[in-house]
This record gives sequence, C-alpha cells and structure tokens, in this order.
Amino acid sequence: MRDTVMMSEMSWSEYDRRLKDGALLLLPCGTIEQHAHHLPLGVDKLLPTRVCQEVAGRLGAIVADPIVYGCKSQPKMGGGQDFVGTTSLDGATYFNVVRDVLREFMRHGARRIIVVNGHYENMMFIMEGIDLALREARYDDIRDVTVMRLEYWDYIRDATLATVFPEGFPGMALEHAAVIETSLMLHFFPDLVDLSRMPEDEAPAAFPAYEIFPSGKRWVPPSGSLSPARGASAENGRLIADDSVSGIVRDIAAEFAVAPR
Amino acid sequence: MRDTVMMSEMSWSEYDRRLKDGALLLLPCGTIEQHAHHLPLGVDKLLPTRVCQEVAGRLGAIVADPIVYGCKSQPKMGGGQDFVGTTSLDGATYFNVVRDVLREFMRHGARRIIVVNGHYENMMFIMEGIDLALREARYDDIRDVTVMRLEYWDYIRDATLATVFPEGFPGMALEHAAVIETSLMLHFFPDLVDLSRMPEDEAPAAFPAYEIFPSGKRWVPPSGSLSPARGASAENGRLIADDSVSGIVRDIAAEFAVAPR
Amino acid sequence: MRDTVMMSEMSWSEYDRRLKDGALLLLPCGTIEQHAHHLPLGVDKLLPTRVCQEVAGRLGAIVADPIVYGCKSQPKMGGGQDFVGTTSLDGATYFNVVRDVLREFMRHGARRIIVVNGHYENMMFIMEGIDLALREARYDDIRDVTVMRLEYWDYIRDATLATVFPEGFPGMALEHAAVIETSLMLHFFPDLVDLSRMPEDEAPAAFPAYEIFPSGKRWVPPSGSLSPARGASAENGRLIADDSVSGIVRDIAAEFAVAPR
Amino acid sequence: MRDTVMMSEMSWSEYDRRLKDGALLLLPCGTIEQHAHHLPLGVDKLLPTRVCQEVAGRLGAIVADPIVYGCKSQPKMGGGQDFVGTTSLDGATYFNVVRDVLREFMRHGARRIIVVNGHYENMMFIMEGIDLALREARYDDIRDVTVMRLEYWDYIRDATLATVFPEGFPGMALEHAAVIETSLMLHFFPDLVDLSRMPEDEAPAAFPAYEIFPSGKRWVPPSGSLSPARGASAENGRLIADDSVSGIVRDIAAEFAVAPR
Amino acid sequence: MRDTVMMSEMSWSEYDRRLKDGALLLLPCGTIEQHAHHLPLGVDKLLPTRVCQEVAGRLGAIVADPIVYGCKSQPKMGGGQDFVGTTSLDGATYFNVVRDVLREFMRHGARRIIVVNGHYENMMFIMEGIDLALREARYDDIRDVTVMRLEYWDYIRDATLATVFPEGFPGMALEHAAVIETSLMLHFFPDLVDLSRMPEDEAPAAFPAYEIFPSGKRWVPPSGSLSPARGASAENGRLIADDSVSGIVRDIAAEFAVAPR
Amino acid sequence: MRDTVMMSEMSWSEYDRRLKDGALLLLPCGTIEQHAHHLPLGVDKLLPTRVCQEVAGRLGAIVADPIVYGCKSQPKMGGGQDFVGTTSLDGATYFNVVRDVLREFMRHGARRIIVVNGHYENMMFIMEGIDLALREARYDDIRDVTVMRLEYWDYIRDATLATVFPEGFPGMALEHAAVIETSLMLHFFPDLVDLSRMPEDEAPAAFPAYEIFPSGKRWVPPSGSLSPARGASAENGRLIADDSVSGIVRDIAAEFAVAPR
Repeated sequence: MRDTVMMSEMSWSEYDRRLKDGALLLLPCGTIEQHAHHLPLGVDKLLPTRVCQEVAGRLGAIVADPIVYGCKSQPKMGGGQDFVGTTSLDGATYFNVVRDVLREFMRHGARRIIVVNGHYENMMFIMEGIDLALREARYDDIRDVTVMRLEYWDYIRDATLATVFPEGFPGMALEHAAVIETSLMLHFFPDLVDLSRMPEDEAPAAFPAYEIFPSGKRWVPPSGSLSPARGASAENGRLIADDSVSGIVRDIAAEFAVAPR
Repeated sequence: MRDTVMMSEMSWSEYDRRLKDGALLLLPCGTIEQHAHHLPLGVDKLLPTRVCQEVAGRLGAIVADPIVYGCKSQPKMGGGQDFVGTTSLDGATYFNVVRDVLREFMRHGARRIIVVNGHYENMMFIMEGIDLALREARYDDIRDVTVMRLEYWDYIRDATLATVFPEGFPGMALEHAAVIETSLMLHFFPDLVDLSRMPEDEAPAAFPAYEIFPSGKRWVPPSGSLSPARGASAENGRLIADDSVSGIVRDIAAEFAVAPR
Repeated sequence: MRDTVMMSEMSWSEYDRRLKDGALLLLPCGTIEQHAHHLPLGVDKLLPTRVCQEVAGRLGAIVADPIVYGCKSQPKMGGGQDFVGTTSLDGATYFNVVRDVLREFMRHGARRIIVVNGHYENMMFIMEGIDLALREARYDDIRDVTVMRLEYWDYIRDATLATVFPEGFPGMALEHAAVIETSLMLHFFPDLVDLSRMPEDEAPAAFPAYEIFPSGKRWVPPSGSLSPARGASAENGRLIADDSVSGIVRDIAAEFAVAPR
Repeated sequence: MRDTVMMSEMSWSEYDRRLKDGALLLLPCGTIEQHAHHLPLGVDKLLPTRVCQEVAGRLGAIVADPIVYGCKSQPKMGGGQDFVGTTSLDGATYFNVVRDVLREFMRHGARRIIVVNGHYENMMFIMEGIDLALREARYDDIRDVTVMRLEYWDYIRDATLATVFPEGFPGMALEHAAVIETSLMLHFFPDLVDLSRMPEDEAPAAFPAYEIFPSGKRWVPPSGSLSPARGASAENGRLIADDSVSGIVRDIAAEFAVAPR
Repeated sequence: MRDTVMMSEMSWSEYDRRLKDGALLLLPCGTIEQHAHHLPLGVDKLLPTRVCQEVAGRLGAIVADPIVYGCKSQPKMGGGQDFVGTTSLDGATYFNVVRDVLREFMRHGARRIIVVNGHYENMMFIMEGIDLALREARYDDIRDVTVMRLEYWDYIRDATLATVFPEGFPGMALEHAAVIETSLMLHFFPDLVDLSRMPEDEAPAAFPAYEIFPSGKRWVPPSGSLSPARGASAENGRLIADDSVSGIVRDIAAEFAVAPR
Repeated sequence: MRDTVMMSEMSWSEYDRRLKDGALLLLPCGTIEQHAHHLPLGVDKLLPTRVCQEVAGRLGAIVADPIVYGCKSQPKMGGGQDFVGTTSLDGATYFNVVRDVLREFMRHGARRIIVVNGHYENMMFIMEGIDLALREARYDDIRDVTVMRLEYWDYIRDATLATVFPEGFPGMALEHAAVIETSLMLHFFPDLVDLSRMPEDEAPAAFPAYEIFPSGKRWVPPSGSLSPARGASAENGRLIADDSVSGIVRDIAAEFAVAPR
C-alpha cells in the first residue's frame, strides 16, 4: 500500500493506529472558482491540500480530503458569483459540512485538528462551523478538543514579498489569480498552468469602498484575475511555499508541542 | 495545460467553452468510509470518480470534482457509523450540498448532468438533493434541465458476475469491501490495496431482518468487510469496470442522443 | 373505555401505567401514495398500522398513531411524484418528524421503541431521524434507549412466496400496488379494495438502470401499479400477514426478552 | 369500495376525479395530548377529523388524513409539556409539515383548501405553514389558491353555551379536557370516554398573567383537565357539534360559493 | 457615563458586575408594524421597551435591547402582512433569534430572565424560542435558569378598563392602534403621535370566525386601526402604564423574591 | 409628529409616501459586544445608526431600525465570545434576519437599499443574507432591486488618519474599542463614554497568524480593547464622522443618481 499522508488512502485501521499514536489531523478547505484563463478552477483546493501534505510530511500528521466546494465568491475577493465555473455552496450548507466533518473527526478520537483554508470567502463560515462543532462536542461532554485555523498565505515573510514583488507588495486584497497563486501553481502544479493565456495587460481591479448586489462583473477585469500575474514564477512559488509550509509547521509544533522531523 | 476531463483542472473559460459546445457534466458522489484493512477509506470516492473519467473520455464529457464526504454508513450497507475513519455528513447537510452544486451547474448553463454514485447510503439523499435543485430551477424558470442518476455497480452484466463469482453471485447486499470493490481497486488503484491485510477467513455478515439503533458493530465482521473478498483480482476488476463504463456510456448516449467516440 | 392497543385511544394515565409496566412502543410509518385504481391512497399507512396492532396484541405493546405523510415517491419504488394523490414531505421535514416524535417517546419514559415502516422511500429518512433522536438523547444523557426498525414485508417466508407466486417470485422491486399489497388489503380491509378496477392487463414496469429527473411517468404503467396484481387474494393476504406478524413478534420477543402471549 | 369522504380511502383516480369536479379539500390538524384521565390522548385529532367528515358529507368535500402530531402543549392551553403522553413536534417541524402537505395538495390541483384545527397551540404555526406554502406557490406562479383556516370551537352559538353552561360560560380559556371536549367525545366517540375517571372535584386551574419556563405543572390540576367537566353530556356534545358543523358548512358555502346538500 | 438600565449603554464590566450582584434581566420583544396613520411603525417595540425601563428602575434590573423585528402580522391581530411598513421575520428566524439571545444571556450568567412582549403575534414563537434555549441549556447542563414571559397589557386592571372605556370594554381583540396603544403612546411618546390623523369615523373591524389566505385587507379598516381610538388620552395612558408597570413589578418581585425599591 | 428620518417613528402611510417619492432606505447593522471598560456594549449598533441618520438627513433617505444583535465576536476582531455582555446570534440566524428584513423592504416597494455595517464579523453574513434575499426576489420576479453594502470606517481619508494617528496609523485590524470608536463615541454619544475607565497602559493585542478554538481570551487584553485608545478625542471623532458621512453620501448619490441636499 502506498506510503501516504492522505487519510483517504489509508485503511481505517491504519488511520486509527496513527490517531492513537498521536498524529495531528489537517483539513484543507478550498473551492472551485474561476482563476482567470491561465489557472484551473481548482486552485483554491489544490494549494491548501498540497501545503497540508508538505506540512504533514514534516509532522507525521494526517491530511483529510479537502472540503472541495466552498463559499460564494465575492467580487472583491475572487471575482464574484457571475463567472461560469465558480461553484459555491450556500453559507449554511458550508458551515454544516465543516461542523459534520469535525464532529466525525472527534468521534474518531482526533483531538488536535488544523483547518487550512485556501479560499478567503470561506473564513468566517469555517469559524461558524468550528463553533457549531465545538458546541456539539460540549453537549457530548467532549472538552479536550483543540481546533487550529489559518490561511496559508498569512505565513509569507516580508523578505519573500520583497523578492516576489520587487516594485513593492500592493497588499493581499487583489491577489486573486495573480502573482502569488500563479507562482504557487507553477511550483506545485506546472502542468495545470498555461502562461500563454495569462491576461498580462489587464489593469488591476479598482473597487469602490462599497459593494453592489446583484454584483455582476462591473469592477472585475474580464479575465477574472484581480491583478496581473506579471512576475509570477516557479521560483517565486517555491519561496512562498517554503514560507507557508515552514511557518505553519513551526506554529503547529509550538502550539501542540510536537517536534517536526 | 494538461489535457483533462476534470472540471477543476480546466480554466473557467475552457470549461465554459466545452459546456457551450454541448459537453455533458458528470458528478461523482462518494464518501470516506471504512473498507476493511486491505482497502483505503476513499474507495467510494475513488471508484465513481474513475468510472466517470473513463465515461467522460468516451463522450467528451466533463467530470466535476466528487462530493467526497457522504451519508451516514448503515451497518447492513457499509458497516455502520461505529468505525473509526468513516466520515459522514448529516442527511440534510448532504442533500443541501447536492442541491447547491447542481444549482451552480445550472447557473453555468449545464442542462444535462449525470450523477454517478459510489456509496449506497447516498442514494435517497442524492434524489432529495436533485428534487430540491429542480424545484429551485423551476422557481427560476429553468425548465430544460435533465439530471440522470445511477449507481455504477448496476451495470455489471450477468456474464461478468458468473465469471467473478464462479460459485454463484450471492447478491449485491454484502458487497462492501468485498470481491467487487477489491477487484475494481486492484484494477484501477493497485498501489492503494494491501492484499496481505485482506480478512480472508471472516464469515460474511449475517444480519437479521431488522435493525437496531444505536447500531454498534453487533452483526458486522471485525474487519468491516461484509463478506470475504476471496477471488478478487485486477482481471475481475477490469471486467467489472468495462461493464460499468460501457453500460453507462451506452445509456448516456442513448438518453442524451450523443455519440460515443 | 374501549380496550385498545392504540396510544391515542388511551388516557395519559393509562399510557403512563403501561409504559411503567414495561410495555413496548410501536410506531408505524407510512404515507399517502397512489396505489393504482383498485387500492386506496392510504395503503402504506393502513398496512403497517394494522400489522403493528396485531403484533402489539400478542406482546402487550402500545401502538402510536402512524406518521401518516411520508417521503417522496420514487418512480421505481412507488410510481413517483407525478401522480395526483401522492402526498409527500420534504426529506428534512420527514426525519424531523421522526426525531421529534421519538424525542417525546423518550421523554415519556419509553426505552424500547419499534418503528415499523410500510413505505420503502421512508427507510433512509427514518434512519436519519432515529440517528438525530439518539444524538439528542445522548446530549440529554439518556443512554438506555433501543430503537428497532424494520419493513414488514421482509418477514414473508419463502414458502409463502412460493404459494403466492406460483410462477416464481419476481422480487420485491415491482411489488407496488401489486400482489402482496393487494392481498394484504383484501385480508385486512376488503371494503377498501375494488378488484373491478384492478389493471390486470398492464405490463409490469421495465425500468432502466438509471433514473431521470424530472421523473415524470415515462416508465410507470398508467395505473400506477408497478406490476399486475393477478393472483392477489384475501387468503394470500392472510398468509403474508401471518408471516409478517409472527416474524416481527418473534424478533421483538427475542431482541427485548419479552414473552409473546 | 367503501363510500367515503376520506382521501386516504379513495384511489388516486377517484380523488383526482372529485378534485377535477370541484370538490373542496379539508385538512384536520390535531395533536396527541393528555386530556385528563377520562379522555383519550387523541381528542384533538379525533374531534376536528370528525367535524371535517360531517362537514364534507354536506358539501361533497374530501377530507385528508389529519396531521396527527401537533405543536408543543402550553400549560395555560393544554397542561404543558410535562405530561407523559403529550407528543409534540418542534415548531419548525410542524409548520414544515403543513407547508409540505399544502404544497402537495396544490400540485394535485386543489385550489380551495380548508384547514380545521383542534389544538389551540397549533394556530400560529398553521398560519406560518400556510404562509410558507403560499410563498412557494407564488414562486411556482400558482396564484389562484385560497386557504381557509379555523378552529371548530369558534362556531358554538351563544344559545348553546347558555344551555351547556347553565351557570354561565366562563370562557374558552380553561376548556381543556373540560365540558366542551368531554361532551363532544361523548357524542362522537362514547366508547373512548370513561366518565368514572373524570376528575370532578378538582378546582379549575388558576394561572397568573405570566408564564414560567421550564413550565412544570405548577398551576395545572393533577389530572391535566384545566377545569372540571361537570355537566358534560352526549346531548350537549350533539348541540355543540351541530353548531360547529352547520356554522362551518355555512361559512365555507358562502366563501367558496358552493351549495350544501 | 449615563446612569442607565439599558444593557447596551453599560460597559461589559458594569453589566457583569450588576449580573453578579443579582440583577434580573428584562428582554422586550416588539415589531415594526403599521399602527394606522396617527401612530408610528415602532409602537410595538417602543411600548414594551419603555415598560421594561420603568419596571427595571423599580427593581434594579437590566433591560436588554429589544428584539425589534417580530413575527408576521395577522389580519385579526394587527392588520396583516399587506400593509407597507409592516416588517416581519419568518417564524423560524424569529424563534432562533430568541433562542440565540437567551443562550447568550445564560452564558453571561443570567439565570432570571423576563421576556416582555408587545406584539401579540410573537407570543407562540417566543415560547418556542424559550423552549429551544432551555433545551440547549439542558444539553449544557445549565439547569438553574428561569424564564418568565408576559404581555404587558394583561396587567391592566378592570377598574382602569372601566375608566378608559366608559361605554364598556369590548375586549382586547380589536385593540390594535386603538384606545390602549394610542393612550400609552400619548403618555410615553407624545411627539410620536399625530392625533389629527386618527381615523375617528372608521367602523371597527368585523372579522368572521375563520381566516382566509392570502389574507389581503378584506376585513381590515383602511387605516389599519382595528377599532377607533376615540377616548384615547395621555391620562388614560398613564393609568394603563401604571397598572402594567406596577403589576409586572409585583409579579416579578414575588416570583423571584426580590424587593422593589 | 416628530420630524424624523427613522422608519419606526413614521406612520406606515408617511413611510409609504416617502418610498413612493423615491426615498432611499438605509439599514444599519451592529451588535451588542464588549468594548472595554470605557465604552458601552452598544457601540457597534450606535455608530452605524448615527452615521445612517446623518447620511439620511443629507439625502432625504429613511433609516430602518438597526439589526441590533449581530454575529459572533472573533478574538482578533472584537475580543471573542468569551466576554460577558457580548451577545451574538448563530450565523444562520443572522443571515436569515437580514434576508427576511430585506424581503419585507422589497415588498414595501423599496428598490434602493443601503446596508451600513458597524461590526466587522457581520460582513460575510450580511452578504449571505443579501444573496438569499435577492434569490427570493428573483423567484418572485422582482429584478429591479439594488442593494449597496459598506462598512462606515472604510470612508476615513488618509489625511484624517494622519491627524488622528500622529505616530502613524497601525491599520484597522486592532481598532476595536480603540482610537476610532472611542473618538466617534466622544463625538456622538459623550455621555456614554467614561474616559476614566479607559485601559491606557495595556499593550495592544498581538495575535499569531492562526486562531485557536475554543478561543478563550488568550491573546486578548483583559479590558477587551485590542489596542489603547490613547489620542481619542471628540474632535478626532468629528473628523472621522465627517469623512464617513460625506464619503457615504457621495457614493450613494453617485450610485443612485440622487442629489444630496
């Protein structure tokens, strides 16, 4: 049987043994969402899952299958719900999935769970799902569970940003299908990137302070990329990935008092 | 960019183009559930997804990412909810996921969708999700959608069953982590099978006509396999897979008047 | 006051006394669904309720009023939702009814409850409702409840099938408004059957392996009967009823260690 | 086949024919609730169903099976939720049942539906269910439905009250398991009444202006009757029933422009 | 900082201190609903909040911000949902708000909570919300909470009614935007009343025993007032307010064994 | 009657007239949440409501009563759910309130609605509520509604930030119960501020990149303020308020083509 960190590739008895041996459990959360013409719809699922796999490799942890379908895309964050391909759940559906999956992990005996998010719009609904799961845990008199939660991009170091954005980092807000995600995809999944279709000369999105619903695509560049991915490279992707993985490993190790390999 | 049938590996514009060109959309439904010691937890997700990929290859169709986490395991069908590793959603969560994903596919313009199920317990909840999605479509005055639904194992021919079960086919009821699934896994994912851990000398499960809740594992063999997988082989898996794929291709082609390649 | 097994015909204090004396509680589940021209819409409610009454009579048990309105009819199981008269609840509504009613029975002190189903489409949703009720019971620190669940037709013996189907039993799949239900109705409720309206010369339904939604009546015989009821008789109904009642009595008696009268 | 007003006793084709011929559809709503020691738990289901049958007989209408399980009992209205036997649904479950059943009736083609309530606590939740059903009807562009709703006791004439309560009618508030319901049961279902167990010398309940939760039985007489049923008789029941039935017939006839027989 | 009874005007530490010192917590419930031309839409929120403030002043209690948006208006109770301005929540939304807010108060340590209602249609849904909150409290092993619930108008004494209605009190049923509410508004919020727009010569509403849905405005006077407010005065408002406040103070003091100031 | 912009202070006919005359409708969203010792629990409700009133005054708009109770506090945003006084709704409850209130406004005829948020954690749930309301509007064939949405603090100009934060603006992240909110409260509601209780010498909160649940108060300063309010003043509040109000007026005027007074 394949040596694996993926829960879905283990037998139940192998998974059970590792949990009993103290393995941490990582849950990637993504979505299916337009990422311009040069990146696939699965970016937000692929990246956190891959980051989790790297993290798990260094910590002897287990990675659950990602929750693939995520929360509604917002224009300012991912172009909005008017793109073909973007496939989103209602908010209540989403946090109930998070709640149910966490409830099951707790039934399995998992007491240290890390949720790694790769789709910004999921954030508040993941927190709602965790809150509901912990409420039920309390009803079930399970009081020793800890759930950690993070976005992988919050671990990119300033030095890396300075390298990746030589003209200055304009902030995370418009980094949808832009330099960071394109670089990470070139690093991890180069055969899923088509640089020839990258919308190089689109202007970055310029949003007002407010939002309008129905949102449409009024302020979103036609490609769906919120800012150009110029400067994206596999090497930049490697730098970013290293920051994310090593930062997450460090924080998990410290928080849960485990030693990375 | 990789040539692919997977929606999540296409850009939104490529997906949009194929839909507009009339591509059918396939949605695999599985779960994460114990499958004894020799098979991984992901069997019910892996098999329908792979079947969909084969079917899509012959029909120029698109395969959406599977809905990974499925409905509660029942003792008579998959060993029940008392196994570590089995990871299930509440019924309402599940059919809302199905509803939401279908609602999005319809927004994309998909009008011919095929749901391919690999976890028996999902069946009635998939039908509920489809019903809710079609109700909303009606509210939205979308009246030209057709959703096809099937279990891949219903396409195994009698001749194949006679070959695979030389002592006679005892019926589908106990085929959990047994001959059919083990053979298919040996055919499609041999490195995820560990035949050395196959529970060869367990007696098949013998259930009463009724069920008891809380269910526990009272009538379920310790491994979780409902009957021994003796006789499973990659070759048998190939026969079964061929039946499923060609049968599904034939029915889709006939139902939607498309020509297989 | 009438001597009765029906909970709704007892005063609260009589019901309370019997529960405290150890009476089992039976809950019939049915629906209102088309059963061709010769049988009434209430078949699926009438039969399990009557079976429960017979069973209760032999076990000193109590029969709660049936949950009358059931889950959506599926074409392959009961003709589907396109018949006038078929009256179904959404899946979530249904399992919440089951959950709520069971929660109340547990509050009453009932700890041994048997759910007897007469409408196939209810099955998975009853199990969901039981699961939700037991979860809440656990939150309430009620841990000594046992819920048994069954379909009454699973108790028909092979010898009876051989008598009732002299040309061979074609399987339960098409037994909707067909020989078994018609015979049972002739046995228990002859004045609700109109044999003159029985669709004798319709061919049995022939379904493909898949399903199509919106389902319509494409593969369903016009009457709504999935196969002809030729050979149905009150005498056959008596044989079937005897099997069901005595089988259920036997299993309940064994499972709950009670002695039938 | 029995000549009947009950929908569940008709075949689907007979029901369909009557609806197409313009038959009105009546839906009784009740509950299972303690009614002191002399009355059965099913009073609130039995009485509105019987009233509906009488009304239907005079109007050529159809009576659907009652929604048996109703809303939570409140101390001031029916003794509260602390009695064994009282079996109630959550509010949301209840109005969803009402919504779903009405949605089905509308699918059948019913456009004139009358909901007859026999359990006070159901009232607001029935109205919520009707509102939700009509909202969905609107989404479905069904705009010609009329739903009438009433409590049967609102049709008792002052002259009858003067006869039934020779010392003056103290008001409807404490008429739970008291004179009106006992009289009606003696009239319609005498073999379900045990006058020997009637709590004659209990004082009527005396409630404060407020309510306390958890409610308990603090202000409720031990039997569960909110005031003594002294003076109840079958003859009084006949007077009350005549008022209810003839009043409801009159109002339905006027509202829907149909002629009573 | 302002001396206040309003929770929202206290710092968290001040609120915490008062709760720990034994302060009771009052929760007003109202709605936004048409109240004819002479009264503002906020009457049902303003009056119970003001009554709570008066009560709190005498008992050293705390008043939470009112739940402003309430349950659907019914024609017989408040004119119905067809008026512009009436702003209502779905039943489930409403009782979930009540449940959630009570859950939070219990988390704060509040164990004696009084819900004061000013919109009749809220009543049953408030009780549902309280029931759900207490169920969750039980799951959380919180068993020492008491929730009191009342409508402020149930405390008006007969003597006051005799004064306010010199020609006899016709009952509370038509007191929507009529004498009692107009008087109370003139007493508490005179600058929100425009007597010149009072519909003096409308006949009171005359409703049949039944209701019709969709309800429309068929039996509701055009202004929305269910009966004329003739005779309303600030002085009458003072009498009514005194009754309500002193009655509620008396009952709370007795029920919770606290001494009014 | 008071001249007012508040919907709840208008009669239904006045509100109706203004809507028909083209008035915009503003909906403030806040919560009840700890704001350290020097600010009241109602800050997040008070500020957006007051901003709305100012905006409405300049645009002839109407202000609906705020949705007072908001979404769960998160440690990094408002100190988290472990403070006494913080009173939050479940996510689903919250977006259903938003949905229901917007549905009603649309029924009233409002077609241009602006939601002004004062509690960061509400943001994603408000967007969910708007999405659900617009979905229902679509079902109801209402297609001419526009909903604008904003946070009032996004309108503070850089020049103002430079004045208010002479040592440099550290970013909005820790501005909970800090300089901006304290200044605004001193400007608008000075008698609800107690500067003597301001936690001047607490260090600002220092959060890791991740979050931990159950969250507790591990990284939150004891007062609940995420950074010190040193430098807060009524004059700074005036500058901030002017920016917010004039910026919002400008954007609404441009978006909806109305002329400010």
